[in-house]
Amino acid sequence: MDQKEHKHIAPKERAGPNTIFIGKKPVMAYVLAAITQFSGEHKEVHIRARGRSISTAVDVAEVIRNKFVQNLTPTVSIGTEELTDTENRPMRVSTIQITLSK
Amino acid sequence: MDQKEHKHIAPKERAGPNTIFIGKKPVMAYVLAAITQFSGEHKEVHIRARGRSISTAVDVAEVIRNKFVQNLTPTVSIGTEELTDTENRPMRVSTIQITLSK
Repeated sequence: MDQKEHKHIAPKERAGPNTIFIGKKPVMAYVLAAITQFSGEHKEVHIRARGRSISTAVDVAEVIRNKFVQNLTPTVSIGTEELTDTENRPMRVSTIQITLSK
Repeated sequence: MDQKEHKHIAPKERAGPNTIFIGKKPVMAYVLAAITQFSGEHKEVHIRARGRSISTAVDVAEVIRNKFVQNLTPTVSIGTEELTDTENRPMRVSTIQITLSK
């Protein structure tokens, strides 16, 4: 069970203002954050989430595409990140990155 | 795949045995279903989910890739499906399809 392979770890280094991390806020909060980026200089927005927030990330991307910014192309990648739990044991969590490009 | 009554209109047309619909079962139930398909004739497996089950779909795909079948390429697409709620009002729900290919 303790395989140490983790090739699919998501890199957080490249996160600029056009990267939106999904947490516990309502969907529309993230939708507005993304739209703000598009109305600025950015041609693409990255939506990132892990664990149970992954389904919210898809909701956010779909609301943006269906209601606010037409003709966006979504590119989706999934991965696994290794974290430690409260007792310092390693645990794995799934991640998603949805890139919406004009 | 069981053909019980579903109130919602799901596009299940092209669903063969290598399409796994994610519901409320434990992750490993779907992982085993997918592995069974790979050990048969199938070179690819489609994992589909909507709403809150989307994060489970990503978990299933990641467990398969990290622990059971190496070198699978995941292709992910997202979308929106229109259903009707219990009072017959239209509601939208996000969907995901993850295709794992050998």
